[in-house]
Amino acid sequence: MKNITFIGLGNMGLPMAQNLINAGYHLNVYNRTTAKSEGLKGDFKVYENIAEACKGQDVVITMLANDETLYDACLGKNGFLEVLNEGAIHISMSTISPDASRDLFAKHKAKGQHYLTAPVFGRPTAAADAKLFICTSGEEEIKEKVKPILEIMGQAIYDFGNEPSAANVVKLTGNFMIMASMETMAEAFTLAEKQGLDREQVANFFGETVFNAPIYKNYGTLIAKKQYQPVGFKASLGFKDARLASKMALDAEMPAPLLSLVYNRLLSSLANGGANADWVEGIAGGVSKDAGI
Amino acid sequence: MKNITFIGLGNMGLPMAQNLINAGYHLNVYNRTTAKSEGLKGDFKVYENIAEACKGQDVVITMLANDETLYDACLGKNGFLEVLNEGAIHISMSTISPDASRDLFAKHKAKGQHYLTAPVFGRPTAAADAKLFICTSGEEEIKEKVKPILEIMGQAIYDFGNEPSAANVVKLTGNFMIMASMETMAEAFTLAEKQGLDREQVANFFGETVFNAPIYKNYGTLIAKKQYQPVGFKASLGFKDARLASKMALDAEMPAPLLSLVYNRLLSSLANGGANADWVEGIAGGVSKDAGI
Amino acid sequence: MKNITFIGLGNMGLPMAQNLINAGYHLNVYNRTTAKSEGLKGDFKVYENIAEACKGQDVVITMLANDETLYDACLGKNGFLEVLNEGAIHISMSTISPDASRDLFAKHKAKGQHYLTAPVFGRPTAAADAKLFICTSGEEEIKEKVKPILEIMGQAIYDFGNEPSAANVVKLTGNFMIMASMETMAEAFTLAEKQGLDREQVANFFGETVFNAPIYKNYGTLIAKKQYQPVGFKASLGFKDARLASKMALDAEMPAPLLSLVYNRLLSSLANGGANADWVEGIAGGVSKDAGI
Amino acid sequence: MKNITFIGLGNMGLPMAQNLINAGYHLNVYNRTTAKSEGLKGDFKVYENIAEACKGQDVVITMLANDETLYDACLGKNGFLEVLNEGAIHISMSTISPDASRDLFAKHKAKGQHYLTAPVFGRPTAAADAKLFICTSGEEEIKEKVKPILEIMGQAIYDFGNEPSAANVVKLTGNFMIMASMETMAEAFTLAEKQGLDREQVANFFGETVFNAPIYKNYGTLIAKKQYQPVGFKASLGFKDARLASKMALDAEMPAPLLSLVYNRLLSSLANGGANADWVEGIAGGVSKDAGI
Repeated sequence: MKNITFIGLGNMGLPMAQNLINAGYHLNVYNRTTAKSEGLKGDFKVYENIAEACKGQDVVITMLANDETLYDACLGKNGFLEVLNEGAIHISMSTISPDASRDLFAKHKAKGQHYLTAPVFGRPTAAADAKLFICTSGEEEIKEKVKPILEIMGQAIYDFGNEPSAANVVKLTGNFMIMASMETMAEAFTLAEKQGLDREQVANFFGETVFNAPIYKNYGTLIAKKQYQPVGFKASLGFKDARLASKMALDAEMPAPLLSLVYNRLLSSLANGGANADWVEGIAGGVSKDAGI
Repeated sequence: MKNITFIGLGNMGLPMAQNLINAGYHLNVYNRTTAKSEGLKGDFKVYENIAEACKGQDVVITMLANDETLYDACLGKNGFLEVLNEGAIHISMSTISPDASRDLFAKHKAKGQHYLTAPVFGRPTAAADAKLFICTSGEEEIKEKVKPILEIMGQAIYDFGNEPSAANVVKLTGNFMIMASMETMAEAFTLAEKQGLDREQVANFFGETVFNAPIYKNYGTLIAKKQYQPVGFKASLGFKDARLASKMALDAEMPAPLLSLVYNRLLSSLANGGANADWVEGIAGGVSKDAGI
Repeated sequence: MKNITFIGLGNMGLPMAQNLINAGYHLNVYNRTTAKSEGLKGDFKVYENIAEACKGQDVVITMLANDETLYDACLGKNGFLEVLNEGAIHISMSTISPDASRDLFAKHKAKGQHYLTAPVFGRPTAAADAKLFICTSGEEEIKEKVKPILEIMGQAIYDFGNEPSAANVVKLTGNFMIMASMETMAEAFTLAEKQGLDREQVANFFGETVFNAPIYKNYGTLIAKKQYQPVGFKASLGFKDARLASKMALDAEMPAPLLSLVYNRLLSSLANGGANADWVEGIAGGVSKDAGI
Repeated sequence: MKNITFIGLGNMGLPMAQNLINAGYHLNVYNRTTAKSEGLKGDFKVYENIAEACKGQDVVITMLANDETLYDACLGKNGFLEVLNEGAIHISMSTISPDASRDLFAKHKAKGQHYLTAPVFGRPTAAADAKLFICTSGEEEIKEKVKPILEIMGQAIYDFGNEPSAANVVKLTGNFMIMASMETMAEAFTLAEKQGLDREQVANFFGETVFNAPIYKNYGTLIAKKQYQPVGFKASLGFKDARLASKMALDAEMPAPLLSLVYNRLLSSLANGGANADWVEGIAGGVSKDAGI
């Protein structure tokens, strides 16, 4: 298992792949935009075709933008489902829908292969430092097998049982919580500002005391400073997650008004041309605009 | 200044007063329900009349439930405004409206006295451990004078300038953030539960990783376990704060939909007989009820 | 064209079919629950198989509960797409998604057949009295051809152009407006009641004056009296429409917070076991419950 | 009783006063901006001082912008409470808070005078045509006495009992319903527009069919055309009513999320400099802005 195919060299995938190379793995890599692989160093080989990159492999890791891209990589023309070895493992680390994981789990199983859900929490810098939090769900035996691989990329692994979709539920739930926290901070700091206070001072106070968690410190600083550049995570991707979380809520018959609020906040951002802006701007910028500042 | 009158021996006031006694201060204490003072030990004297408790004093600390109670203590029949020494300092630590602080600051000033705003963050256990975070605003000279007193009760003092109302704005903004975080967690954990996951496991994961702040750990556990007893902070008091925050938002022309959401959540709790339930139940119980679990 | 197949004899379909029979048409009828056809009188024939009911027909009218049922009738095993005559017309009167109409229009066209979108506004009594408002969109020539048929069922036909999905957009938009009006009245009458007024008197006042439209008179009376029996339109069907409207809003990048509000209101009703209750109860009952009355 | 003092010659008050003059009453009139009285014709006298305009009168009608202005006219320096005859009647037709009516009722009573609550529904053109709907509450005997006066100004009088505040509750509830209807139409027409339909055609359809009430026809046309000039009713006045309705909801422990939605919508309009824009623009313009059109 020292040979791995890694598909998806975006802001997150690139440093994750690099850590695997650094740990002694040989990687076949594929990215839609091949030039992204120029950021890698060490023992790897770049492919321009997914099937070729995966042929005869035992492990493939996917870190892609959404369900559609993952389906295309797995099941499309030149997809990897048909060319992996029997018994091969697909480690699916993208933020995708629970439905997609259930479906792909079954499709791999039908081929005598395995699918492990393993989405991550953390930003690109955390990925570079191998400080990601990794959530897993799926077959116990497979989790044991790939544990050494996951440990290279993350600081801790949290397991959520056998249901392939469970870790996706956790990931989407977490992204909802992050968006809700951004709305919370944006309303709070804007209210303080409009009451005559210094919003950075207020943000610092909360980030140092009762809300001293990474989410509140990091996003809190960006929101307080209204600093929306550089773009860390696009509003369009944030909205995708709000949409997937809403679909989960629909399937579970779960009314979630705060989820609806951030969903509409980001949808408004998209409708106003902000798809490529940072999701912090999508949410906090909307609060500012409503408040006239 | 080793003599202080302390008014309000509730869940918070009692341990705060005890810490002052332990530090060598002599306290005159008053509480509407006199029996509360039985919880104190050491050098103090109980009064059944505010004016008598404050006559000729240089420092009075108030820790009361709301604007109305504070106004009554300060300006009512037997109120302390008329009996304090010239130059005396009123340290106002209750969670009250910015309007009240502006007004009382002026009224004390007209008497040659001083008013310092100093609300706190922290629960009763934090008060007992002298681990409160204290926010101040008002006259610089007065802050210097009372610093030794405040340091006995808190782990850190954060100052927000000269405007008497500023620290109240921070306190109410913070309580809004706490309520919004409860709504966030309640929706998140309920969504996870309805998707088949264990809500406690999900809460623990977030409390240990990206949301590892006291608010998320402490309230997160209560919300995950649906544990609403014993009552730590009443829904009626939580709603009071949502109402004061809404008034601030109105005055500042600040549309705040998430604030409106938690305001309505708690108002619904009150309308359904939950005024004396814990505010966690007011919010998280409402999310559960809407979700049919 | 005096032979028509009518599929779907529910609360709406039955009186619509009866009006066609009364006007001299011979009907082949199909309903999943065959017993429903016992309500019909005159010249018609009951089938237990859709394909047989449609074989060699030139006109088929569908009045079904949702996309899935319509797809099954049209494209499923024993579906009618394969058995209609070339040049045949499918008049699609159900409340379905714009996507479904676009898709079925194309599928009929590929078979040399025609698809006309023609959803209706009105309750079962309006259907019985041939007082429905019918919205159409699709091919001009086909509209002209079926005009005599539609005029038998409705008091007026409103056309929305050539795009097959347009009339569905109008229908779903209208059902959103009805749900929003129910929320409006429920909040208004409950507020008046909690302020000590007679909610029926208040409802009558508005229904006779500034809000003297059928929606406000009819639903207003039900909401004022909290009269939720008999069930006229199920909450599960109302939610289906809220869901389809939300999908339209998503596709159009349209943030719609009031739509989200009624969507969550009905979803909460479903989550609490109210799928088969009237949608008026789903919305107005939720307002009452939140208000503790 | 052929002598009446009329205070407040705004868009509504002016035509109402004219109708009284036309019916043979002699009017003493007062308006803060005296020039407004130039619009009147016939038997009236203009005063620049309220007390002089009311001295020795038996009937005074007030039609003012808000609680504050009414209080000033009634109780301020040169206010009329002190100068009216014993037994005089104050017909209070402004849109004010229930609290204000309860308070003024008591203050007049203490002077041996009477206070009748009589707010109106209708726009300036309806006032000119004497087509207002007038809601009353208060003392039965007084209602009988002033009936001839009210009938000159309105097409119908609806009575809501003895409680002085009841008619205010109805008026504010109605204004909430109008604002909610504007939000409903704005979201509906914008959704239809973004789905490719003609929003005017959609508005016309609903205004002619299921929503054929004045509110939907009149405001519907403005919203469909995005026609916000001339200003008929200022957003600042609309927000005042949303604020008063929210205060009623607070007092009655009534969670009203749709009221919160339109409240925030108008507050955002004010925060963005739109206080003097029409309330239709305040609401519908906000929906458009969020939708990026």
